[in-house]
Amino acid sequence: MSGRRRLVVIGGDAAGMSAASQARRRDRDLEIIVLERGEYLSYAACGMPYLVGGQVPDPARLIARTAEQFRQQGIQVHLQHTVEAIDAGEQSLSVRTAKGEQLTQHYDELLIATGARDVRPELSGADAAGVFSLRGLGSGIALWDYVRNQRPQRAVVVGGGYIGLEIADALRRREIDTTLVDLLPEVMATLDPEMGALASGALRAMGVSLRLNARVEALDVADGRVACVRLGEAVLPADLVVFGIGARPNSELAGAAGIPLGVRGAIRVDRQLRTGLPHIWAAGDCAESLHRVTGRPTWQALGTVANKMGRIAGLNITGARAEFPGVVGTAITLVGETEIARTGLSEQESVALQLDPVAATIQDRTRAGYYPGAAPITVKLIARRQGGRLLGAQIVGGAGAGKRIDTISTCLTAGLSVEDLLQLDLAYAPPFSPVWDPVQTAARVLLGSVVNSQSRSDALESAND
Amino acid sequence: MSGRRRLVVIGGDAAGMSAASQARRRDRDLEIIVLERGEYLSYAACGMPYLVGGQVPDPARLIARTAEQFRQQGIQVHLQHTVEAIDAGEQSLSVRTAKGEQLTQHYDELLIATGARDVRPELSGADAAGVFSLRGLGSGIALWDYVRNQRPQRAVVVGGGYIGLEIADALRRREIDTTLVDLLPEVMATLDPEMGALASGALRAMGVSLRLNARVEALDVADGRVACVRLGEAVLPADLVVFGIGARPNSELAGAAGIPLGVRGAIRVDRQLRTGLPHIWAAGDCAESLHRVTGRPTWQALGTVANKMGRIAGLNITGARAEFPGVVGTAITLVGETEIARTGLSEQESVALQLDPVAATIQDRTRAGYYPGAAPITVKLIARRQGGRLLGAQIVGGAGAGKRIDTISTCLTAGLSVEDLLQLDLAYAPPFSPVWDPVQTAARVLLGSVVNSQSRSDALESAND
Repeated sequence: MSGRRRLVVIGGDAAGMSAASQARRRDRDLEIIVLERGEYLSYAACGMPYLVGGQVPDPARLIARTAEQFRQQGIQVHLQHTVEAIDAGEQSLSVRTAKGEQLTQHYDELLIATGARDVRPELSGADAAGVFSLRGLGSGIALWDYVRNQRPQRAVVVGGGYIGLEIADALRRREIDTTLVDLLPEVMATLDPEMGALASGALRAMGVSLRLNARVEALDVADGRVACVRLGEAVLPADLVVFGIGARPNSELAGAAGIPLGVRGAIRVDRQLRTGLPHIWAAGDCAESLHRVTGRPTWQALGTVANKMGRIAGLNITGARAEFPGVVGTAITLVGETEIARTGLSEQESVALQLDPVAATIQDRTRAGYYPGAAPITVKLIARRQGGRLLGAQIVGGAGAGKRIDTISTCLTAGLSVEDLLQLDLAYAPPFSPVWDPVQTAARVLLGSVVNSQSRSDALESAND
Repeated sequence: MSGRRRLVVIGGDAAGMSAASQARRRDRDLEIIVLERGEYLSYAACGMPYLVGGQVPDPARLIARTAEQFRQQGIQVHLQHTVEAIDAGEQSLSVRTAKGEQLTQHYDELLIATGARDVRPELSGADAAGVFSLRGLGSGIALWDYVRNQRPQRAVVVGGGYIGLEIADALRRREIDTTLVDLLPEVMATLDPEMGALASGALRAMGVSLRLNARVEALDVADGRVACVRLGEAVLPADLVVFGIGARPNSELAGAAGIPLGVRGAIRVDRQLRTGLPHIWAAGDCAESLHRVTGRPTWQALGTVANKMGRIAGLNITGARAEFPGVVGTAITLVGETEIARTGLSEQESVALQLDPVAATIQDRTRAGYYPGAAPITVKLIARRQGGRLLGAQIVGGAGAGKRIDTISTCLTAGLSVEDLLQLDLAYAPPFSPVWDPVQTAARVLLGSVVNSQSRSDALESAND
């Protein structure tokens, strides 16, 4: 063992590699070892649906950087190395290699960045050929291979969240008959139902058949390959089934080592991303984060969040005192030509949290009405009735609609009100927006429901005070 | 004279009609009279370049609402009525009608919304046929008529600001040989020069010839029509010349009445939009507003600002106590396929204000690099060296680049820092953004130049505290 301090990172994707790179930039002497149980490092998991859909021609495009590139930075990367146990007292790990060797790895600082995994259905037939879910680049490549080589004709996608929608979109681009099954009356449970209905409409516009309020009860298998999906009485013939029914944090290793877990089993961390045990940090999809609107811990498995947390972990492990302030729950996806985005709390979530919300939904255009290419946009805005502090927003519309959610995400982060949003100096020219940006038109309508409207930004001082 | 209270509005465009409509909604009894000296009400001035360029087929599309529509709301509209004097002591106006009649109009409350006008060149030949500048819908229609009916072959556009760029773009869409002349080394003086160079490049890519560091010294006229533009030694043959060399507030009427004027001669107003004389308000392009970054008065003639100010004036005139908090200097335009946007202070402006700025400029893509249609985007970000409070940003890029400026505008409004921007939970999916949004990549780079980095949003409490 050398005399250098040693950081060991478990997990070689967004959070782990961001942390390793950040730590390397700040500390040239630190020994950095990354243990990744899979075959790939630092890949763009969010890009897998576009590989399946054909927009991305080659899985190699999804690999941001190779192990060799990291090694040239002085980061030791070990693929197919599975950490089986953490001994927090001894500051050591039990590691099994692809060849079955057992190793012990000492650490001075440990970052757990083990990510999340898809929820697999507990159904007979779920292991048959033709049944997929997305968990890591290997599974994405397997689905891509199956679609290209087996040429399935009829697909069933189970689950109407982001992955379900993106895979249904991808399969329609491959001209596969596609049915999407969801438990609820509309897809996209993270939206309020009337906005989810717009997402359902976008799927139908792509030719996706929807089976809503429906539960998959069994998969029929013939010759080892999936043949039908049973929804109670209904039977859907299928030679491809893709599950996108949720995810959960990979926190068992941490839990077994006595590290406290929190929301949905994610690893509990403070704002500096320390776990409850000394010299052990956690970042990315395996860890909790703070929801900046509710002030409560939340669990959000997203690549952007993982990258941000990784950076903070890398800073702090090398002696900085940076904080990860948390998330506001922003997400976006594309179905055909329809952009779907959300941030903050939905109206339903706000009611459940007893925040006494008011909401307004408006329909507008992405550009000046007289300018060519103005696409429809629907904006739902949610705020507290008393004072009007913004709580969340949902946007569904054509090109240019979705990224407008960033304005609201920024408002939520800064604690701005409906009145503040209405007064923002947003960019206007006819090819880009109506005179009142649609998010501000929603604010104008919502303002009528706010009692004792307040403005937070009144209190802000100017930059040269 | 009736016993009803009477609001008189001078000027029937964005600010005036927004105020009149807002006042009408809040007070059904108020008598509301709008005096407009021109022939049109409430038209989309920003749309005129697209009429010239052909994207908008018909000037009628640019008229948001007609006088008749306002009359049905109970707003009395008088077109071609010119207010010649304000007697603030008597609360009355001297008005001349199109027929030459002189009237006296009493008011209880007066809103001055006289807008701005273009700066006309003091050059011989500037009155010749074929010489235009844009000041009101009439002039836009005249240019549109000229382009369609006179079929000019060679145009010179003088001035490289928003109007100049948009008109040059429009003329190229009409396949007219177009030269743009500007005094400075690059177009778009509201950008820092290296970003202005990108705007210059976008013009060249559309086939616009640029004459930079050049001054128009004379116009040659033949048979009453413009024939050449003289730039010192150089002579540019031209059968169409369009000036876009700036604007100034229409504040002479107010000034003559003893109303205090401020920055660039705009009418001085408080945050409730009261002028210095009782019962007289001002809003829109004729009035000052507060720059929320500098904390100083500024003058910004923009339709969005005029609409917002009009709303506030209409609220306050009917007894509310609303405030117009000001602007951050956001603007956007399109040249060919290139989106150009800015907000806040430029680096040059920040230096001039002795704000000790640091700046970073990055090149990135609008989407994940592996996703089709990812367009280039350049982001320049400016902040205070001490603490990193954001001061401004400039963005030039392809589809989806420009409206990202709204995220920064919102940050400026909330007083956020580079660190805060970096931590924002912005929307990510491969069709919309790289994992780190380009504005955040700029923040990552800029953070390295910030001393004692601070986070404002750390102090923000959650919504259910």
